[in-house]
Amino acid sequence: MPQQFVVIIAGGRGERFWPLSRRARPKHLLEVVGSGSLLEQTLRRVAPVVKLANTVIITSAEQARALRAACPGLPKENIVVEPAARNTGPAVALAAALIAARDPQATFAVLPADHVVRAVRAYRRDLKAAFAAAATRKVLVTLGIRPTAPATGFGYIRCGGRSIRAGGRSFARIERFVEKPPLAAARRYLADGSYLWNAGMFVWGVQSLATAFQAHAPALWDAFAPVRTALATGTPRQLKGAMRAAYAGVERISIDHALLEKVSNGVVLPASFDWDDVGSWAALSRHMVADAADNRVSGEGVVVDGRGNLVIASPGRVVALLGVNDCVVVQTDDATLVMPRARAEQVRSVVQALERKPSRARWL
Amino acid sequence: MPQQFVVIIAGGRGERFWPLSRRARPKHLLEVVGSGSLLEQTLRRVAPVVKLANTVIITSAEQARALRAACPGLPKENIVVEPAARNTGPAVALAAALIAARDPQATFAVLPADHVVRAVRAYRRDLKAAFAAAATRKVLVTLGIRPTAPATGFGYIRCGGRSIRAGGRSFARIERFVEKPPLAAARRYLADGSYLWNAGMFVWGVQSLATAFQAHAPALWDAFAPVRTALATGTPRQLKGAMRAAYAGVERISIDHALLEKVSNGVVLPASFDWDDVGSWAALSRHMVADAADNRVSGEGVVVDGRGNLVIASPGRVVALLGVNDCVVVQTDDATLVMPRARAEQVRSVVQALERKPSRARWL
Repeated sequence: MPQQFVVIIAGGRGERFWPLSRRARPKHLLEVVGSGSLLEQTLRRVAPVVKLANTVIITSAEQARALRAACPGLPKENIVVEPAARNTGPAVALAAALIAARDPQATFAVLPADHVVRAVRAYRRDLKAAFAAAATRKVLVTLGIRPTAPATGFGYIRCGGRSIRAGGRSFARIERFVEKPPLAAARRYLADGSYLWNAGMFVWGVQSLATAFQAHAPALWDAFAPVRTALATGTPRQLKGAMRAAYAGVERISIDHALLEKVSNGVVLPASFDWDDVGSWAALSRHMVADAADNRVSGEGVVVDGRGNLVIASPGRVVALLGVNDCVVVQTDDATLVMPRARAEQVRSVVQALERKPSRARWL
Repeated sequence: MPQQFVVIIAGGRGERFWPLSRRARPKHLLEVVGSGSLLEQTLRRVAPVVKLANTVIITSAEQARALRAACPGLPKENIVVEPAARNTGPAVALAAALIAARDPQATFAVLPADHVVRAVRAYRRDLKAAFAAAATRKVLVTLGIRPTAPATGFGYIRCGGRSIRAGGRSFARIERFVEKPPLAAARRYLADGSYLWNAGMFVWGVQSLATAFQAHAPALWDAFAPVRTALATGTPRQLKGAMRAAYAGVERISIDHALLEKVSNGVVLPASFDWDDVGSWAALSRHMVADAADNRVSGEGVVVDGRGNLVIASPGRVVALLGVNDCVVVQTDDATLVMPRARAEQVRSVVQALERKPSRARWL
């Protein structure tokens, strides 16, 4: 029987949750929502569906050490370090090579490491149904999230009229992928009802994927031919060299752009679970309890005469706000960030400003 | 020849500069402006006029230890701990007893510990002139500060028409003391030209002071009779008991209210030096260099897209502001304060809020 695998994409530059996140400690390694880091929660969520031995994490050299420490039960060879960050297109091509080397008939899911899902049983049911569809119907499955707001930060998927059934669920044919839209379009998509958010969660068979790559992204697929050869017959050292060569030449492109927008066998499963990518400090508010003045405080915080603030204090330290409204204040051992909630999507500009400081290293 | 003394009132509850100031480390023990703590600067400023052996510091039990460490050259017995904080009236009565016991003919200055003066030579000349007036003319001298703004946080002194001369300087008769005024009145005082700020700096002879106390504040004076007796004939333990008894019964009152408003031999010397009481974090701005966006940063700070902020970062830590204007952000080892500049006078409300926290002790 063909095996099932999970490939967790653990990228991230540690910018959006600065100063808590750092280059070597991106969001998925933080315990910002729920118990344990978001990556640990992802592993726990998947574990009953796919055994740990079949779980592969693709990550960067910068965070490999922290990641190994965070995943003590994971076989060492299941943590794969990309020589460079090239977006999800090359990462999926690499994953396909890695999984095919273990089982050429396998199906595998691609999942982000840093999302929040509370309805874990619904999540697992959906994942199993997606595996069933990928295995039996040779389709490329995307899990789509029913929009709850006119978000401009996500890509959308427009569901087509036809549908297929597998694992007891209906999968809609994908009519098209839509780039992150302006607000007016996002509002239309929300009202329309046939658009879902693209959350970067995919399930497919190794063979279906290879066929699609060869048809629609042959250059990207061919770039990884030496990697496939090294996996089949080479030494670990040869594999490392082949990976370095592949990444040196390959285009930086998402799997959506490289492949999924072009295939005709793409289907989407509307997720039956809640989902939040917690994309910023402000987004974290949704997971915190507000006090009577709509302030959300983690740790020791004091808000005098202020409303609508998000306050994060590190252990043993206190954060005090006086006459401040609708701000985010985050304090860690060695850094403090203050900004209006409305600027929470722009924390990257602070990280960029820090990069220009001579004394920056310790804070990045 | 009668001796000259200086009595430095080192009180303070460590509230206005929280979180840098604490109960045991009020403003005068901080290095916020210039080199060394404000108390050290006060001692250095006075040293060429009055020898260290004749310099007495009156302080509270809470900060006595930190104060002793901060004044290594000062004779231990010159640091006097009040059993309770009762404002400047009782403190001056105590000082009068202490100085009279050393030299009944002495003159002494009463000076706050935590003010900023840059023109130290002018300061010393003024102080010497005030000592001369106190010794030769038997007057009670207040040093008055020429107002530079319609401040509502200081008391004012209205100068009378007549004047006396001593030490080569003119001293105006005090017509009256004025309480901290509302803004409209403060504007009139500023325009009028005959009003000076009362900065709590006084010079007088022990005998003139005793005469004034007996005439205008006999209850306060009598409360310290046991202290004077113990100083003359008692043991250190008896002195301690006498002080405790005196403070238990004495009224909480300023020397201005208790005495100076009532005397007829009060004079004021318009100061020829610059002066700043640096009464709040916002006031500190005046002593910091602004960048092109009018931000003032001490330590490692990053301000992205923000103007008019005051940022204080503790060593090894960074403070980052994004899209924030006209705010004060102070970060210490264990606390962070965020407030609009306009609220800087109200830091006390934060300290009061902290007092209600079970975990408060470490931050007060």
